[in-house]
Amino acid sequence: MQNFIKLLVLSILGWATMVNAADQTPAPSHGISYPTGWQNWSHIAVSHRIDNKTLRVILGNDVAVKAVRTGKTNPWPDGAIIGKVVWKETQLENWKAAIAPGNFVHAEFMFKDSRKYTESYGWGWARWVGIEQSPFNKGAQICTSCHTPVKDRDWVFTDPAIIPK
Amino acid sequence: MQNFIKLLVLSILGWATMVNAADQTPAPSHGISYPTGWQNWSHIAVSHRIDNKTLRVILGNDVAVKAVRTGKTNPWPDGAIIGKVVWKETQLENWKAAIAPGNFVHAEFMFKDSRKYTESYGWGWARWVGIEQSPFNKGAQICTSCHTPVKDRDWVFTDPAIIPK
Repeated sequence: MQNFIKLLVLSILGWATMVNAADQTPAPSHGISYPTGWQNWSHIAVSHRIDNKTLRVILGNDVAVKAVRTGKTNPWPDGAIIGKVVWKETQLENWKAAIAPGNFVHAEFMFKDSRKYTESYGWGWARWVGIEQSPFNKGAQICTSCHTPVKDRDWVFTDPAIIPK
Repeated sequence: MQNFIKLLVLSILGWATMVNAADQTPAPSHGISYPTGWQNWSHIAVSHRIDNKTLRVILGNDVAVKAVRTGKTNPWPDGAIIGKVVWKETQLENWKAAIAPGNFVHAEFMFKDSRKYTESYGWGWARWVGIEQSPFNKGAQICTSCHTPVKDRDWVFTDPAIIPK
């Protein structure tokens, strides 16, 4: 009977942990839900910003990757999500001339929906900061003001990297 | 009847094109088959080699990504494939301080199979060069000699980038 109670307690603890894990999806940024699963998205490009010493991988959801591979990115189609994952630069321990990802900075996303986001140029703008993924909520105009130089490229800086088909 | 013949000819041409496309899988490198579909693999890291002015994304197949996320990469498990996609560096047109992928150089891969590749430290080493993906067949020792500094890290330079779970 004692073993049965132990098992019961362990089961309840296990269930509670699962519920807790399910609750750990980061809160929305600018009213936009967290794009769960972006860690598995395909890459679109990479970059090294030497002005602020960060390395980035640019990812896309299925709609975005299909748009890239068919060359239909100006405008990007509704449903496309582009993600930019940012790290502070460091040196690779065993190859000093290789600049590699150090501390994680943030993951930021552009969500294309030309009908929903009419007031922010057809895109929803969101960012989650730090390894704990705290939602950024200081206003999409911070994003769009920086992206203004590329307003004629549907507000996207990234040139998709050329890869073999 | 003429329309039927036109349709028949077009169908045969379409079929011939498909067969041709199927034949275009690049030939093996060092006896290793081309890892079709790597373009959709998840990223493990990125790097910017300032010695030879190249940018890279490091990708993994499902086995490799699972190993990364569970911290089991020394040794890497059999079945893991790590890919390194390499471009010459360029500047992003609209953000000059962002170094971005220019011309595609090559895609190279390490295939972990500790029983099959006993003579090359448990890994198969392969590379396909240029956008046309010509197989590199100059010998795996060219790969392993360069990787010798990391022989105690199961021959892998890459530190997987830290990302939120």
